Amino acid sequence: MQDEQQRKVTPLADLGEFGLIDRLTAGFPKYHASTVKGVGDDAAIMEYGGQSLVMTTDMLTEGVHFDLTYTPLRHLGYKAAVVNFSDVYAMNAVPRQMVVALAVSGRFSVEALEEFYAGIRLACEKYQVDLVGGDTTTSLTGMTISITVVGDADRKRLARRDTAREGDLICVSGDLGAAYMGLQVLERERKLFADDPSFQPSLKDYEYVVGRFLKPEARRDMVEFFDREHIVPHAMIDISDGLSSELLHLCHDSHVGCKVFNHKIPIEERTAKVAEEFGIEPVIAALSGGEDYELLFTVPTSDYEKLLLNPDISIVGHVVEPSAGCYLCTQEGTAVELKAQGWNHYQ
Amino acid sequence: MQDEQQRKVTPLADLGEFGLIDRLTAGFPKYHASTVKGVGDDAAIMEYGGQSLVMTTDMLTEGVHFDLTYTPLRHLGYKAAVVNFSDVYAMNAVPRQMVVALAVSGRFSVEALEEFYAGIRLACEKYQVDLVGGDTTTSLTGMTISITVVGDADRKRLARRDTAREGDLICVSGDLGAAYMGLQVLERERKLFADDPSFQPSLKDYEYVVGRFLKPEARRDMVEFFDREHIVPHAMIDISDGLSSELLHLCHDSHVGCKVFNHKIPIEERTAKVAEEFGIEPVIAALSGGEDYELLFTVPTSDYEKLLLNPDISIVGHVVEPSAGCYLCTQEGTAVELKAQGWNHYQ
Repeated sequence: MQDEQQRKVTPLADLGEFGLIDRLTAGFPKYHASTVKGVGDDAAIMEYGGQSLVMTTDMLTEGVHFDLTYTPLRHLGYKAAVVNFSDVYAMNAVPRQMVVALAVSGRFSVEALEEFYAGIRLACEKYQVDLVGGDTTTSLTGMTISITVVGDADRKRLARRDTAREGDLICVSGDLGAAYMGLQVLERERKLFADDPSFQPSLKDYEYVVGRFLKPEARRDMVEFFDREHIVPHAMIDISDGLSSELLHLCHDSHVGCKVFNHKIPIEERTAKVAEEFGIEPVIAALSGGEDYELLFTVPTSDYEKLLLNPDISIVGHVVEPSAGCYLCTQEGTAVELKAQGWNHYQ
Repeated sequence: MQDEQQRKVTPLADLGEFGLIDRLTAGFPKYHASTVKGVGDDAAIMEYGGQSLVMTTDMLTEGVHFDLTYTPLRHLGYKAAVVNFSDVYAMNAVPRQMVVALAVSGRFSVEALEEFYAGIRLACEKYQVDLVGGDTTTSLTGMTISITVVGDADRKRLARRDTAREGDLICVSGDLGAAYMGLQVLERERKLFADDPSFQPSLKDYEYVVGRFLKPEARRDMVEFFDREHIVPHAMIDISDGLSSELLHLCHDSHVGCKVFNHKIPIEERTAKVAEEFGIEPVIAALSGGEDYELLFTVPTSDYEKLLLNPDISIVGHVVEPSAGCYLCTQEGTAVELKAQGWNHYQ
């Protein structure tokens, strides 16, 4: 009988990132009217003095989220900031203040951290965000970065991920799959270099995809376009884990289904070329590769003509009733059910 | 000549934590009127919709800030939250929302993280703070915790650390040095256990000091007392690094000096007893030990009688002109210049 009472031990790999967060944060109390929406979107929503605010946080660890053998510290600082700005834009909000917490081991020099902060500063200048605080401390090994960003929004324009409606058009900004292919190129070069230290990596012909991975941008221009054209997306999410997994999040949280079309998914020619070189279907890179930081959003069909004004927006499908499920359709008429291929770092 | 141009490498240990932060964040631009005060206090100050907000962040790494051999995960979660609330109270503000970022290696189980979150939840319930978001991710080794808290405040009651005035009374809440002695006890037991695994640690007689280290509380009651008695501290800071180093911060940032009195520093009898057992002067534990999370604040002498209403406040000295420096005075009349003994983790 004793054995049955022994403590249960569930490996983290048994739950995905989101299953884990749901389980850990279930049933937390909510005390304040200033908390509008808590856990479960790109950012939390708060309201103070009649002003809607959003807050998002993101943690990056060395060896898991970044590899310093091919990531310049300046790029890393820039990217660490930008991925948080992307979460704020995904709420149709504007990032304003940021705090940076950083833990590094003794192997880092002051000059190395200055490079990292130079990248943070570039991002702050480009996106006009104020660095207002932080914590710099020690770790036994490696580097860990945690950034929290606060942004403000018009309450009536906030875009959550749980409010897509049947009949909405499903849209994507920019193009997808490039960052994933950039990572493949960098990993290949890293392995060649490890096998032969005299190897000289050449990234010629790969600038586009490698740039998309190392120095992503957040789609501030989309939020400005929506504002200018009086578009209020019904739902929005940023594509950090691959289109497939973000579509499933958005549909699950909104209690709807979706139909997206293979040939409508925007893929750059340079991305497709690299994917072919690696023997990867370009659309798989777009659906399952991560870190593009484009925006996925839904709008009513009445906005269709406005969308045509922006060549950087692709309509990839539409929202359907929940019972119809989430499907990817090919031009030949076959339909494949979408599966989450988001990164589960524990597996 | 080439040699002179080689890249300079400055070890992190050459700069203290605050010197490093100053160097890294110097010259960042400030774009928004909503940013009132950035880097350099317990928390940043923002203003939205006429409402003053504060934001603070703190990062804790395994093996540096906590040792899981003697820190129960539930206590760790509680403490990680409370130390951030303490920073908010130190602004004379009230914590409202919190985001938790956590990186753990595969050696942690779901149940272990549930214990950690149970501690976070206890802290949220006790201090009435809403958990509104977070990030749970992987690290190659160990556990890293980063928490950011937002609080609100009455603009006229905000207490910064750079606004102490000559003639102010210098006050401390509660008692000091206990957490440091608790850490000494735990470290001693850990070593005995490492040498002899059959050793049974006994913390009897040490509950108070060990409790102060493992499960500190933030001084919400002080902020409520100030509010009730219409006291607005001229300056305030929380004592996370030892009284000496916090006094020097407050005086340096306020451009003033101070005179504090040895025999006025509040030390619990149980703390003094443990200190004596370890051959440590109790006042040294209070001046140089960290993690008490009491509040250090200055008020005008006109508040003197109000202070007497609260037996948990000790008046330890007063603010003097900057040229007089920062001194600790004994009853015998000798004066010793205060030195920063804050923890420099890199040394």
